[in-house]
Amino acid sequence: MVLPITDGAWLMIESGEAPQHVGGLMVFDYPPDASPTWLHDTWQRLRTATDFAPPFSYRLRRPYGLAGLFDWEPDPDIDLDYHLRFSALPRPGRVRELLVLVSRLHSTLLDRHRPLWEVHLIEGLQPEHEGEPPRFAMYAKFHHSMFDGVGAMRVMRRMFSADPDLRGMAAPWEIASTAATTPSPVPEPLRSSPLEKPGLLDPVRSLGTIAGTLRDQARATRQGVEGEVMPFSAPRSLLNGRITGSRRFAADGFSFERMSGVAKALGVSINDVALAMSSHAMRTYLLDHMALPDKPLTGMIPVSVRTEDDGPQGNALSFLVVDLGTDIDDPIDRLERIRTSMQRGKDRLASMSRSERVGYAVAITSPYVIGPLLGIAGRGRPLANVVISNVPGPREPRYFDGARLQGMYPASLLQQGQALNITLTSYDTEMQFGLTACRKTLPQMQRMLDHLDSGLQELEKLTAA
Amino acid sequence: MVLPITDGAWLMIESGEAPQHVGGLMVFDYPPDASPTWLHDTWQRLRTATDFAPPFSYRLRRPYGLAGLFDWEPDPDIDLDYHLRFSALPRPGRVRELLVLVSRLHSTLLDRHRPLWEVHLIEGLQPEHEGEPPRFAMYAKFHHSMFDGVGAMRVMRRMFSADPDLRGMAAPWEIASTAATTPSPVPEPLRSSPLEKPGLLDPVRSLGTIAGTLRDQARATRQGVEGEVMPFSAPRSLLNGRITGSRRFAADGFSFERMSGVAKALGVSINDVALAMSSHAMRTYLLDHMALPDKPLTGMIPVSVRTEDDGPQGNALSFLVVDLGTDIDDPIDRLERIRTSMQRGKDRLASMSRSERVGYAVAITSPYVIGPLLGIAGRGRPLANVVISNVPGPREPRYFDGARLQGMYPASLLQQGQALNITLTSYDTEMQFGLTACRKTLPQMQRMLDHLDSGLQELEKLTAA
Repeated sequence: MVLPITDGAWLMIESGEAPQHVGGLMVFDYPPDASPTWLHDTWQRLRTATDFAPPFSYRLRRPYGLAGLFDWEPDPDIDLDYHLRFSALPRPGRVRELLVLVSRLHSTLLDRHRPLWEVHLIEGLQPEHEGEPPRFAMYAKFHHSMFDGVGAMRVMRRMFSADPDLRGMAAPWEIASTAATTPSPVPEPLRSSPLEKPGLLDPVRSLGTIAGTLRDQARATRQGVEGEVMPFSAPRSLLNGRITGSRRFAADGFSFERMSGVAKALGVSINDVALAMSSHAMRTYLLDHMALPDKPLTGMIPVSVRTEDDGPQGNALSFLVVDLGTDIDDPIDRLERIRTSMQRGKDRLASMSRSERVGYAVAITSPYVIGPLLGIAGRGRPLANVVISNVPGPREPRYFDGARLQGMYPASLLQQGQALNITLTSYDTEMQFGLTACRKTLPQMQRMLDHLDSGLQELEKLTAA
Repeated sequence: MVLPITDGAWLMIESGEAPQHVGGLMVFDYPPDASPTWLHDTWQRLRTATDFAPPFSYRLRRPYGLAGLFDWEPDPDIDLDYHLRFSALPRPGRVRELLVLVSRLHSTLLDRHRPLWEVHLIEGLQPEHEGEPPRFAMYAKFHHSMFDGVGAMRVMRRMFSADPDLRGMAAPWEIASTAATTPSPVPEPLRSSPLEKPGLLDPVRSLGTIAGTLRDQARATRQGVEGEVMPFSAPRSLLNGRITGSRRFAADGFSFERMSGVAKALGVSINDVALAMSSHAMRTYLLDHMALPDKPLTGMIPVSVRTEDDGPQGNALSFLVVDLGTDIDDPIDRLERIRTSMQRGKDRLASMSRSERVGYAVAITSPYVIGPLLGIAGRGRPLANVVISNVPGPREPRYFDGARLQGMYPASLLQQGQALNITLTSYDTEMQFGLTACRKTLPQMQRMLDHLDSGLQELEKLTAA
């Protein structure tokens, strides 16, 4: 089964410096009735699985491809002990130690001789506040050629239940291909635009529209239209050095209550507030390093074109490029620039058909595929300074075998020349930020978590009644 | 500082399937006076180091080389938090969980953008017997281009002291380049042969001798001289499939008392007994898989040509190829074949000069260098079926800051087409075996630990008074 180019590209461009897997860190409370060996027992139960569902049962037939072509075949000999790992945190077992372990696990390449996923159960996480019960974590990792973010979220939704009393639940590798119990929402940026039925990309029919869109974008940019930004017009910055293979993962959640207070007061979306927080965090980090570019940083925003009827597998993505207004000192003006720029991008994507959107994405991201093949990745001007992705998740609590999911934080991937990725997931009452960075290119990146918070506080102060 | 070919080759032939680092697993008792946070406190103390000694302070100037040339440069910006990690075992914290974690850590490539080493402190190891105090472990990993086994052992000897009362000891990355406090013994296979002063390899002067040696070896093999074996005459076997990047590490120690009892009774060396145990383990494993070749398996035995005056850095190695007698059913006859074959190899190496020994090693291992470059590694006949290496260590207890070193188990590397490596270290009262294997090519390799023991038991029974 040959992978479509949109899936295979993630394998083609992968290197030790730029692994192309995504991951998720999930933090859980133990079930109220849990024994001290509950997690160990659960691990023992899950590792008895002998039936594996696609794509968890697939391996690459030629691990390194042939002329850029890859194909899946069923793996007759899956070693589940390899894929499902049991780990522990060293003392004192804070979130800090958890993020160190996940950073490490997220830095290593998946083994291409096996199905491209790993799941780690992690014990020893202390409670957030003294007196509360201890917690545990799960870190899941799979290659982007298997799923995109929205597809992965659909799998996660199948793994977890809204029912706190359900027990003996199956693992995703046993059930991935069965139908979704609850469809995942359509990602927010496209919620208002009509979606087509899934279909194959028709490049010839679409090329005219894509070229027209890029021409239109270039004209608007030349005319200085507010918030208008071209792909590959990003300024040079610290965020865009050549990356190495070591990752730092940092994560935190912010309540929707706080974020929607600001959004309502200013007439913007919660997604706009999240972008403004990200913009503030990068601006502050770069100011601290005396490296803020005069021109505004730009963000590439992946947009799902997956429909309700699609399975979770593979990639169905397009992209917006937005002006992040990092050159603007005033927080309200900065947010307004971001809102305007997002709106222009959304309008432009909405004017295209589904296949044109995918074609547009292929057209603007093709340098990422061609660059590594020619060995020139990360040397030209980047498509955008940073990728900021928002994958909607469930807005009410989820459980695994009675263990309440406290939070799910997305860990994403980097391309050569893009040292930071910000991915958001909505879950329960919070917007959860996962920051994935090259540890060497962006030292002390974890400080951006504080800057996200101060960005939100600043907007809260300005909008307080 | 350009790396000599003998060091650079380890970088040249490295791939995701065949990482070229070596490691060591060390198990310690806590010091008698240790507080519950002793290991965490020690980690905190060690990570305050700001001075780094070569080669721990070196990084590669061109991580992927240029025309096969690599050079070291001092790294001005060492992130010690990256190199020195604090980890923990999940419950129940047995040696089994420790070996799973070390297998995992040993499977990942070192980051070539940084100095090529990692040290992991690991807490949560339960005592061997109930009622005894808990233990901790250290796993150290460095690239073979930095050190060979004997060089690494010299560094270890500097890290640990014979004095149980010494405190505030320095880490090897702070002291590697200072003079050895106690010289390490010359490896046993060469103890009786004269050693030259270190010098540069003179290939032209040596070529005649090397060619003569190989001709002599070929003639003796044709004439059917007992124990005589040519490089690249190894039979095809399960041990010589194409490998993947996932490793299984298994380790155990056997008392010298037991091994020397057998050695004395049969008039062989302890090293011969260790080879016979290894031979029995592989023979039994292959019989279990109905895959024992008719022809005897052959072993490649690295031999150090390092002198007392050499520093620990770099590689100074030659090789013997021995007949492991796996075709022989009778354990005593099998041991006799091994002894004869080892003796012939030792005599041959002893007849060469130091530089000729290195040249001989380069000549017979060159297919390992050329193979990966041409993409044909592991497709031809292997040099030998398995590498068996013996790195002598201290024969009395060692301590780190009062923590008694219980055992040190070597984790080694694999080449494409060689799925198993057996490395031995002598320490205190034990010979300690570290088995490193491709997890996918050799399923359930850890069973060989039992087979090592039954091999020794068999010889014990036959030599019992």
